[in-house]
Amino acid sequence: MIAIKFLPAAREIRVPEGTTILQAAVKAGVPMESTCGGKGTCGKCKVQIVQGIAAPATPTEIKHLSSAEREGGWVLACQQVLAQDAVVRLREQKDVYQRKTDFKSGGQTALAPSIHKYFLSLTPPGVEDQTPDWERLTQSLSLGEIAFSRQVAASLPKVLRQGNFQVTAVLEGKQLLKVEAGDTTERCFGVAVDIGTTTVVVYLMDLNTGRAAASGALTNPQQVFGADVISRITHAAGGPDKLGELQEKVVGGLNEIIARLCREKGIEKEEIYQAVVVGNTTMAHLFLGIDPTYLAPAPFIPAFRQMVDVEAREVGLDILAGARVVVLPNVAGYVGSDTVGVMLAAAADRLTGISLLVDIGTNGEMVLAGRGRILTCSTAAGPAFEGAEIKYGMRAAEGAIEGVSIGRDVELKIIGGGQARGICGSGLIDAIAEMFKAGVIGPSGRFAGEAQELEPLPSALRARLRKGERTSEFVLVWGKDTLSGEDLVLTQKDIREMQLAKGAIIAGIRILAKEMGVNPAEIDRVLLAGAFGSYIKKESALGIGLLPPLSLERIQTIGNAAGDGAKMALLSGEERERAKALAQKAEHIELSNKQEFQNEFLQGLDFRRTEG
Amino acid sequence: MIAIKFLPAAREIRVPEGTTILQAAVKAGVPMESTCGGKGTCGKCKVQIVQGIAAPATPTEIKHLSSAEREGGWVLACQQVLAQDAVVRLREQKDVYQRKTDFKSGGQTALAPSIHKYFLSLTPPGVEDQTPDWERLTQSLSLGEIAFSRQVAASLPKVLRQGNFQVTAVLEGKQLLKVEAGDTTERCFGVAVDIGTTTVVVYLMDLNTGRAAASGALTNPQQVFGADVISRITHAAGGPDKLGELQEKVVGGLNEIIARLCREKGIEKEEIYQAVVVGNTTMAHLFLGIDPTYLAPAPFIPAFRQMVDVEAREVGLDILAGARVVVLPNVAGYVGSDTVGVMLAAAADRLTGISLLVDIGTNGEMVLAGRGRILTCSTAAGPAFEGAEIKYGMRAAEGAIEGVSIGRDVELKIIGGGQARGICGSGLIDAIAEMFKAGVIGPSGRFAGEAQELEPLPSALRARLRKGERTSEFVLVWGKDTLSGEDLVLTQKDIREMQLAKGAIIAGIRILAKEMGVNPAEIDRVLLAGAFGSYIKKESALGIGLLPPLSLERIQTIGNAAGDGAKMALLSGEERERAKALAQKAEHIELSNKQEFQNEFLQGLDFRRTEG
Repeated sequence: MIAIKFLPAAREIRVPEGTTILQAAVKAGVPMESTCGGKGTCGKCKVQIVQGIAAPATPTEIKHLSSAEREGGWVLACQQVLAQDAVVRLREQKDVYQRKTDFKSGGQTALAPSIHKYFLSLTPPGVEDQTPDWERLTQSLSLGEIAFSRQVAASLPKVLRQGNFQVTAVLEGKQLLKVEAGDTTERCFGVAVDIGTTTVVVYLMDLNTGRAAASGALTNPQQVFGADVISRITHAAGGPDKLGELQEKVVGGLNEIIARLCREKGIEKEEIYQAVVVGNTTMAHLFLGIDPTYLAPAPFIPAFRQMVDVEAREVGLDILAGARVVVLPNVAGYVGSDTVGVMLAAAADRLTGISLLVDIGTNGEMVLAGRGRILTCSTAAGPAFEGAEIKYGMRAAEGAIEGVSIGRDVELKIIGGGQARGICGSGLIDAIAEMFKAGVIGPSGRFAGEAQELEPLPSALRARLRKGERTSEFVLVWGKDTLSGEDLVLTQKDIREMQLAKGAIIAGIRILAKEMGVNPAEIDRVLLAGAFGSYIKKESALGIGLLPPLSLERIQTIGNAAGDGAKMALLSGEERERAKALAQKAEHIELSNKQEFQNEFLQGLDFRRTEG
Repeated sequence: MIAIKFLPAAREIRVPEGTTILQAAVKAGVPMESTCGGKGTCGKCKVQIVQGIAAPATPTEIKHLSSAEREGGWVLACQQVLAQDAVVRLREQKDVYQRKTDFKSGGQTALAPSIHKYFLSLTPPGVEDQTPDWERLTQSLSLGEIAFSRQVAASLPKVLRQGNFQVTAVLEGKQLLKVEAGDTTERCFGVAVDIGTTTVVVYLMDLNTGRAAASGALTNPQQVFGADVISRITHAAGGPDKLGELQEKVVGGLNEIIARLCREKGIEKEEIYQAVVVGNTTMAHLFLGIDPTYLAPAPFIPAFRQMVDVEAREVGLDILAGARVVVLPNVAGYVGSDTVGVMLAAAADRLTGISLLVDIGTNGEMVLAGRGRILTCSTAAGPAFEGAEIKYGMRAAEGAIEGVSIGRDVELKIIGGGQARGICGSGLIDAIAEMFKAGVIGPSGRFAGEAQELEPLPSALRARLRKGERTSEFVLVWGKDTLSGEDLVLTQKDIREMQLAKGAIIAGIRILAKEMGVNPAEIDRVLLAGAFGSYIKKESALGIGLLPPLSLERIQTIGNAAGDGAKMALLSGEERERAKALAQKAEHIELSNKQEFQNEFLQGLDFRRTEG
């Protein structure tokens, strides 16, 4: 057995010889960025060997690491097989969510949580009144018959006597969740949870005030099994053990955040009485430990889609064991409760005119609401928008290029203001829109190469265009201004990845419009949801033809609307019912089943503004 | 650490030096008879050291073991502290229940179980029909909305495809419990469980036919913590861990029986879809893991008394994890669901006239039904009837004296027909009734001692009366006819124990009659329930004044009516509702709260037939 320690968390684990660093990290529960699931194609799992000896670099490592990096002890965790004890340091990762916990809540939700606390002053029993404890308590609630709870009854005798028969009962409807000694009505919490394929977010909500007490985010620890939902489903299809692994990973991540938030705010986990969860359909299956195998192949059949609620203990969520965990309903295999959360937060059932909701994450979901209908579709937007499959792609974290403008030369906006480490989705759209405007790439997405294409370019831009190892590339940042010291480039392949992603999205939007019988130009408002939607420059999105050609003022960003929807559903039982109705009303359009989709997709690859 | 192996099960365990054999047995889960909880007072935990060296006999061992036994390696497990590895053999124990599985079922119950199986032939999904698996299945049931089950959904995709979309759904009402591939409607099982303080019994029932497929019994493994409910409650009061120990013990015992019955009958545990449990109120608390602490001190407050149902997984019962386990309702702290089962089996709500139901086990519960009322009471009958606290007392197992008649000399009936090992409850009542009739004891329970008392006795009887170590005693069996070779005696203390027990019971009966406003002589029928009730000789019960003076034909035995009630409630939802109504209708009379009880009790000690 070999000992390996991961910095900065200093987590240590013993593994058999022959284990890769990535496998060891998975086993130790150390969150490590890896979007290919250890296949060696993404190059994201960089770690630095601080103690111990690295094996000679593999061809894969030579491809993904600069020689400076390799000399500095940097390796790919998926490539290095451990032969002796080692200490490795993970790359620093400041998640963008941690810098912006100030998302505005969904707004006008009337505070009407289904959790109620009742302070009770009971008459103690005596030989003339042998009423059992359960009856004594529940009869004093005057709510009719309360469903029996073995868990609450188990410790009820002690709690009643600890509190001298002065206790607080915590109820959800007619379900008694907990009895606390004394008067605790002042303290009442719940969590809203947004499980993204890439990032999981927890909002700790005060159910007495409706305000977020705190929130926190983490990379979805399932990431080690691959970046996209298909690789997660493939892993889960390996059997109940594998499915269990994925379930434990994500719940473990949520529990880590919950523990941290509770510590920060001086709250006991047992004071969290309810959870509302949103996520895409695959994430909902995995969170609940339900086999998602048949979501992957056509005809993409989920095991369930309705609103589900389970006890926290059943899924291992570390809040009050008997608390109900509500997972909002899904619409279809690839339109999940996160999209329902977006619809809820955007009030898709109350908007006038024609509204387009776009939530681009690892997948892209689109909702077109109008004419009394709600239509949904989804496309494998590809992880391009989140930086995967892009040579220098990264998530919107410190060091990421998030804005690009091109005039005589390239100007950048970098998260945190320091040296560039890579480029995130919004930066990429900016870069491509500007490159297209400047003539660095043509409408088909090909880099300028012919003399008549190169000639009009400013010399500074011409200097940035060059042949790379395999394909052409454009130097976005020269090595002197990057953290690694090497040139940061966009390759022809990067452009193609983005083209495929945006082509699928605009095609989906056009199919929805056609289904509703409206012209895309008639859309009254476009609401961009998600972290990506919040950062995207609207001009650039229009510039590359990601959205239909609409005037800028019709386009709004609405922040992490999926999470806002979860909060609303936590704060109001009525909003939960509305979420249910929204999911039922939604008509899902399966794009893979539409002949015209291929045609729209091919047309959508073009960077020219799509005509209405 | 020391290794100790228990024969005949050959179970082995490692324990620290200084552990007693009894503690090791508890830890190993080896069922061992012990009614004092290791205090050294009962002398029941005899084991034979087969390998290893016994420590010198303690005074307690000298008191409880013959020198022949001690020379043969027999020790008391609670006395022997292990100093080295050992192999010990447990006493052979053939439980009387295993010889009589032919108890008649409660009878006229119409077979109407709440478990239903539906064979479904579903249309497989396709790109034109992306209905999720759960909806596909539940819609085809045409039962309206079926409550979502995470557990069933978890593996539903696999099961549907294994069965090629031909599956059998198992439902309890609108709760989907399980989906099985193919047509399995022929196989449908449930278990009825009777948790006695001393013995636990499981009946494996075929829900398609209503017949018992098999049944089995075991000493309640909680026995190691003491013979009576008070010692169990005292242990449980030590905290959640201790309560958990008791819960695991009894569930472990039940699981052992269930595993054996399933093996014998070729049934999978997951084919057992429901359980109905009866037991006294303490046993119900312990089975459910609910704190029974405040049942012990006055005013004897249970945590709950209503009918409870929980998932099998929640209590660890090894049947289908999602099966509902129904615990029939209790009436009061010391009138439990076993008594409700007796009422159900005896149809206490349908009998005409005045009926007295008596269930004597470790405790004695009495029910008086008539004049539109059902009255209940309980007395600490004491474990005397089950052989505890009686010098040579034992349960009704092989070698127990079960019948005694006295003419010129003593004649015995011994279970199994071999040499006597001890005396069981029914034998004891017989013996005392006959001794009273013959003049060996007087009406006050004192042995004949005065010349005018001894003179009329046949010489053979006179020879049996002698001074023992502390008190007088009567030799029931001479050493030549006992298994141990030593004389088997009844002591003055034994007589007193029985007097106290029967005095409490007749006093309870008289209080109930007074409460109802009837004379005990007006009772139309006495129904004796339980193993004890089945074996008792009616004449003897009348002879010692255990029952009111009634003609013999008014007294009937009704077998293990508690178990029969559990079976009925398993086979019919209507019977479960009836059980609920019976428990609600029952008016409990708390004897400790009745001033006249002390008076009735003192009068009841007398062996003369109590006048009506």
